[in-house]
Amino acid sequence: MAIVTITRRLQFNAAHRVHNPALSDAENKALFGKCNNPNWHGHNYTLDVSVAGPIDEKTGYVVDLSHIKRVVEREVIDKVDHRNFNLEVDFMEGIIPTTENIVVAMWRVIEPAMRPAQLTRLVLWETPNNYVEYDGK
Amino acid sequence: MAIVTITRRLQFNAAHRVHNPALSDAENKALFGKCNNPNWHGHNYTLDVSVAGPIDEKTGYVVDLSHIKRVVEREVIDKVDHRNFNLEVDFMEGIIPTTENIVVAMWRVIEPAMRPAQLTRLVLWETPNNYVEYDGK
Amino acid sequence: MAIVTITRRLQFNAAHRVHNPALSDAENKALFGKCNNPNWHGHNYTLDVSVAGPIDEKTGYVVDLSHIKRVVEREVIDKVDHRNFNLEVDFMEGIIPTTENIVVAMWRVIEPAMRPAQLTRLVLWETPNNYVEYDGK
Amino acid sequence: MAIVTITRRLQFNAAHRVHNPALSDAENKALFGKCNNPNWHGHNYTLDVSVAGPIDEKTGYVVDLSHIKRVVEREVIDKVDHRNFNLEVDFMEGIIPTTENIVVAMWRVIEPAMRPAQLTRLVLWETPNNYVEYDGK
Amino acid sequence: MAIVTITRRLQFNAAHRVHNPALSDAENKALFGKCNNPNWHGHNYTLDVSVAGPIDEKTGYVVDLSHIKRVVEREVIDKVDHRNFNLEVDFMEGIIPTTENIVVAMWRVIEPAMRPAQLTRLVLWETPNNYVEYDGK
Amino acid sequence: MAIVTITRRLQFNAAHRVHNPALSDAENKALFGKCNNPNWHGHNYTLDVSVAGPIDEKTGYVVDLSHIKRVVEREVIDKVDHRNFNLEVDFMEGIIPTTENIVVAMWRVIEPAMRPAQLTRLVLWETPNNYVEYDGK
Repeated sequence: MAIVTITRRLQFNAAHRVHNPALSDAENKALFGKCNNPNWHGHNYTLDVSVAGPIDEKTGYVVDLSHIKRVVEREVIDKVDHRNFNLEVDFMEGIIPTTENIVVAMWRVIEPAMRPAQLTRLVLWETPNNYVEYDGK
Repeated sequence: MAIVTITRRLQFNAAHRVHNPALSDAENKALFGKCNNPNWHGHNYTLDVSVAGPIDEKTGYVVDLSHIKRVVEREVIDKVDHRNFNLEVDFMEGIIPTTENIVVAMWRVIEPAMRPAQLTRLVLWETPNNYVEYDGK
Repeated sequence: MAIVTITRRLQFNAAHRVHNPALSDAENKALFGKCNNPNWHGHNYTLDVSVAGPIDEKTGYVVDLSHIKRVVEREVIDKVDHRNFNLEVDFMEGIIPTTENIVVAMWRVIEPAMRPAQLTRLVLWETPNNYVEYDGK
Repeated sequence: MAIVTITRRLQFNAAHRVHNPALSDAENKALFGKCNNPNWHGHNYTLDVSVAGPIDEKTGYVVDLSHIKRVVEREVIDKVDHRNFNLEVDFMEGIIPTTENIVVAMWRVIEPAMRPAQLTRLVLWETPNNYVEYDGK
Repeated sequence: MAIVTITRRLQFNAAHRVHNPALSDAENKALFGKCNNPNWHGHNYTLDVSVAGPIDEKTGYVVDLSHIKRVVEREVIDKVDHRNFNLEVDFMEGIIPTTENIVVAMWRVIEPAMRPAQLTRLVLWETPNNYVEYDGK
Repeated sequence: MAIVTITRRLQFNAAHRVHNPALSDAENKALFGKCNNPNWHGHNYTLDVSVAGPIDEKTGYVVDLSHIKRVVEREVIDKVDHRNFNLEVDFMEGIIPTTENIVVAMWRVIEPAMRPAQLTRLVLWETPNNYVEYDGK
């Protein structure tokens, strides 16, 4: 039985600053440079959400794309779109909002909500020139 | 000996409707919504065809890209471009033309035709926001 | 007072065939080739809708992007998305659904509905390699 | 003598909120919705800077692209990249940071600095789905 | 009668160096920097060819896209693709191969060959970050 | 501990010809066609450099993106940008400059220079329609 991976791409935009509150301002500035700007900056993020599994014989789908979209919008997009990652996103509390940390935090929220469909990969683009991938391992 | 994966991207466009003839019209409508429109709709599809192997010392190629292009055009593009997946594509007969089913059907046609080069992945984009991947397993 | 042009990009997909019912099947085939396929084909269309005007001092907007989106979705996207241009789009009745004719027909529907905002340009992409522009003249 | 337009594309990212300080919070919220979030949000902006003129016989250039890049980086990119449009960009003081207002303010800064080369168009993308154009009129 | 502009995008790749043979090597180096490398460099170019006119009532076309493609391939693409602009392109003889000069030279070759269809704009992308436009004036 | 992959995309352009000096000109021409043009051709290349590892608790980074950029620019981009792969790139001496061979040669240069960060994948796009991937195996 063929196992196929299906991916839905979604967009959101948000503000953040890369800042570790356990360090001094000078240490933060030295570590993170302009990404540490206390007045924030922001990005248009692109999130690719992949689910893998056998093809359902009745529908020809691994899973309905509208199911992926609905779960991801409810669990993460509605909480981060036009928001500030440092100040108002519940699943990011106490976490430095680097792209790496965001993608892992999103996995932890999306993966259980997507079941029984099996989330297998998240790719998060921060700019057209950098992205991170996480597969739950 | 290094194993490299080489990918050729190809484009085609086609009409389809997502419809399971074993179900009633009402069930189809409930399952597939606007994708079940009896008057069809269509897409510009993008197909990424990947072949992996060692690099030939004489040519510096895993396989000539023009070989990939020729095989894929003959085996699938010429049969689907400007066509209707439900009505006139031989390798889709009796198969609901979801992106998942299309990519598996294309694998079954392309993989033997590509030999001795080893097809290792197909990625099929239906829109700029969704795609499927299949690696033959 | 500065005049700025603001553009909203929207997506839809549809089926069509390029066919002139006033001509014989043979003439249609000769003129339009594979685009005349009686079983249809389709595209992911991209529509760029531009409105120009002075900037409103209170809002800083020429016009709220959500107004453009709402008007264009109601007047054209909802009527063409996942539809067949030849069979079921009211504003295309009796019109050969080439990209040129579609863009002019869309202008005639969108322009009055957008007022008092001034529609100034429509760009319609049929594939990543061809598009048409119309400015109402 | 042929007149050619040459364009250099540049990227930056920034935070902002759409907010008119002359209005109440409730009016701002009603007018601007989620774009008014007091905790900010942000974007990856793309700026296309166009200069037109005759081709210099000695160089074959209208103007050296590195000149456009240098002027635009010094005059605007260095002031807005990883910054907050509402709080720390001198040329945006007292101006609601909508895309429309940003593009006009950037024109006013870039145009004199680019002379004798003639700036003829700025296109500013806020997201992959919306952009504004300004030609100085 | 509506006047519509239709555009066909084509790709080619070529080598060049920006070099003015009337100047010394030192002057060339000072003026053009790394673009003057005597060992050449190259680009994937994208050319957008626009034709404007009324819509033919019989076909619904301004002009058949395959006509644009055929003319442009014969007149320019076949002469420049996988070629060296400085050494082997007849319509570039004696001309410094900057993007500005290339687009004007291509206009002079394409415009008469496209008639009676009216070429109205060429856009030539040298990289994803810079392009030139020419409209024959 | 989560293992995340982070990718930085970089651009360069270069000239090359696909040519095996151990073969006759006729054999080269037969094998490589227009890619063998003795006058060279060129491309805008895109290189995606991926590093994987655990997230550093102090920074929230797998590795600072500026480290990836700095290493790759120093080790490969500065040596190939606006250069000729056959004539003047030290790590390509004696190697036919196909995309396959380039990506493996770049791996051998980048991988040790990136340590202790672990390079896990290189993707090299030669045109928008073909790319190669290598993971060091």
